[in-house]
Amino acid sequence: MAVGLTPAAGLLPVKGIRLASTSAGIYAREREDLALIEFAPNATVSAVFTRNDFCAAPVMIARRHLKRRRGHRFCLINAGNANAGTGSRGVEAALATCRELASLAGCETESILPFSTGVIGQDLPVTRITSALPGLLDRLAENNWTQCAGAIITTDTVTKGISKQVRLGGKKATITGIAKGSGMIRPDMATMLAFIGTDAAVDKKLLDRILDHAVASSFNRICVDGDMSTNDACVLMATGKAGNKIISDRQDENSRVLQDAVNEVCAYLATAIVRDGEGATKFITIQVEQGKTRRECLAVAYAVATSPLVKTALFASDPNWGRVLAAVGRAGLAGLDVNGVYIYINDCRIVAGGCRDPGYTEDAGRRVMKGADLLLRIMLARGKHRETVWTCDLSHEYVRINAEYRS
Amino acid sequence: MAVGLTPAAGLLPVKGIRLASTSAGIYAREREDLALIEFAPNATVSAVFTRNDFCAAPVMIARRHLKRRRGHRFCLINAGNANAGTGSRGVEAALATCRELASLAGCETESILPFSTGVIGQDLPVTRITSALPGLLDRLAENNWTQCAGAIITTDTVTKGISKQVRLGGKKATITGIAKGSGMIRPDMATMLAFIGTDAAVDKKLLDRILDHAVASSFNRICVDGDMSTNDACVLMATGKAGNKIISDRQDENSRVLQDAVNEVCAYLATAIVRDGEGATKFITIQVEQGKTRRECLAVAYAVATSPLVKTALFASDPNWGRVLAAVGRAGLAGLDVNGVYIYINDCRIVAGGCRDPGYTEDAGRRVMKGADLLLRIMLARGKHRETVWTCDLSHEYVRINAEYRS
Repeated sequence: MAVGLTPAAGLLPVKGIRLASTSAGIYAREREDLALIEFAPNATVSAVFTRNDFCAAPVMIARRHLKRRRGHRFCLINAGNANAGTGSRGVEAALATCRELASLAGCETESILPFSTGVIGQDLPVTRITSALPGLLDRLAENNWTQCAGAIITTDTVTKGISKQVRLGGKKATITGIAKGSGMIRPDMATMLAFIGTDAAVDKKLLDRILDHAVASSFNRICVDGDMSTNDACVLMATGKAGNKIISDRQDENSRVLQDAVNEVCAYLATAIVRDGEGATKFITIQVEQGKTRRECLAVAYAVATSPLVKTALFASDPNWGRVLAAVGRAGLAGLDVNGVYIYINDCRIVAGGCRDPGYTEDAGRRVMKGADLLLRIMLARGKHRETVWTCDLSHEYVRINAEYRS
Repeated sequence: MAVGLTPAAGLLPVKGIRLASTSAGIYAREREDLALIEFAPNATVSAVFTRNDFCAAPVMIARRHLKRRRGHRFCLINAGNANAGTGSRGVEAALATCRELASLAGCETESILPFSTGVIGQDLPVTRITSALPGLLDRLAENNWTQCAGAIITTDTVTKGISKQVRLGGKKATITGIAKGSGMIRPDMATMLAFIGTDAAVDKKLLDRILDHAVASSFNRICVDGDMSTNDACVLMATGKAGNKIISDRQDENSRVLQDAVNEVCAYLATAIVRDGEGATKFITIQVEQGKTRRECLAVAYAVATSPLVKTALFASDPNWGRVLAAVGRAGLAGLDVNGVYIYINDCRIVAGGCRDPGYTEDAGRRVMKGADLLLRIMLARGKHRETVWTCDLSHEYVRINAEYRS
């Protein structure tokens, strides 16, 4: 029941990137649960990971392997098992899959970046994964993005992917990204993975920067830093096969074009995760305006976005604006003049000067809240800064999914 | 469906405090929704309030009236309407009820402390309240604590109250407290009110201190500072009618005895609120041990206590300890060695050295989680500090209650 989201389809191949996926039997039921992404020998890879102290074994290994700046060849991704909370046994298991793949593919173990998502605390079924590797290597093909989008999901109800094309110095470049994630309210399960490939030629340092910027305005606007899961990762691979002159200067017009395209891909994937939030029936854009700083805009946006009371009211299409006010009031803004606060849902003004707008009616509120796609605007009358955070409502279905997750 | 909680009964009268309650028609349905507490002319009153910037009109008025240190005579409490988010109109409404009561009782307006709880953002029905005041004044009696406990509740399923008796310098002193609150996970609705009376004779400054201490280890261990609702208040009244010599020195043995008793009353009422948490089917004591500081113990405890994923797993009696680990990992402890973390549910060790205890079985985990009263112990292996926080699970019923709250 994702909100206004259609499954990934028609994803464009990216020169220099081949993919394959299969059912390795990590899930008890029949479904694809293992994916392999191969990139050309000189590809550049950037990645950002969860900041959770309990990061999963594959996150530790991938981080370690990325200390080497070049020579990465594969992302190996499994669903159904997070390989988190598994201690040194988990690290050994992740390494074992890397070693086997390296041996089969004729590359170094450090060339492999492992990723896992699923239940925390169960041993990774190493043999099932390694047994499936020869078949995956045989079937690598550029046109498998859409299929792989289906192999990496867990509680997602819809596969998530998008492609964009831009011109870089006269050459056509493609950016294709896939993602998984649905363990929202705040992603605090082994939740979010995103893999974005481009054939653009980009310097490693600039690629890092492009990914950081894109994540800051997308994946980091659906999950507060501290709330990332044990496994969250976002990878950007650039193969350099588009034929453009390598981009290394961020003042370069081509850098801006690529940044914009990667931003768009990340924003699409991040909002897709929220739209497919567990049990979500509504998608809410929370826009906080007129803040003194961006930080305080974010504090307000997250206080509202994470309030179970606001989220259940949204589920009920109940314009219970008092709960929004209460959330704004506890965001910890020094010296907030509550009499300056205005709140809109779409074009309906519900709060003016810190209390109910005199022209507001419950009927008007209910009417505007019937929609599945809502814009909640909060004006603070303190400054010029603005921030946007995306969230979804809290429904019966959320509780059912998370209570029964392992049954 | 409160967890292990029986309704308030047999509450002991407190010399110098009289109470009355009635149905003033603030709720559409027939139920008591207005209470009056009168205390003797020379009583001493301390109170702590929400720190929410959007505090309700009655909170503003009560704070203002408490600036005067003496001469308070009444708490006037209504359920069904929070008088929050109502702007200057709401302040005028709260004042109007105080003025009318002062006029009827022959005291000053500043002698009245108003309290409201219920839906945010609707105008307070002033006339209904003032019309009920003469009847309330007529029926004031020392023995009405239990009845009043029923008049101040909102979504509570069980009334909450407790009495204790202690000896202070050879004199018997009584402490009786009542509370309301059920809008939990984190109380971020117009949620919690508590009124505690004692006939002990206590100096105002010491009474403030006793209340602060008691609240710190009780009501502030179920709600993080920043998450208090617009209306939260806890009031401690001391009438001095017990006949003890006035206590003013905190080194005094009698001060310690009274502090302990008030602590016990507050702890009982605070945990009663959690046991009656909306939709709660389990009551969980989260005890974080071996922290470097109390602050970091609290950070971990609240990260766990507020995680929707942990709470839904608790609801499902699912020992999904990975979710607990993930919550510990995002609590922001600098330099946490995850390999030192141990976690127990009751006497069952589920995590040892940062991953699943080798001797742990899912069966053992499920067995221990079947209980309605759970102790979740988290050991950090970093120091000697310890903190306790109380919470409840997140159930279908929570969503139903909060989605339908105003229907």
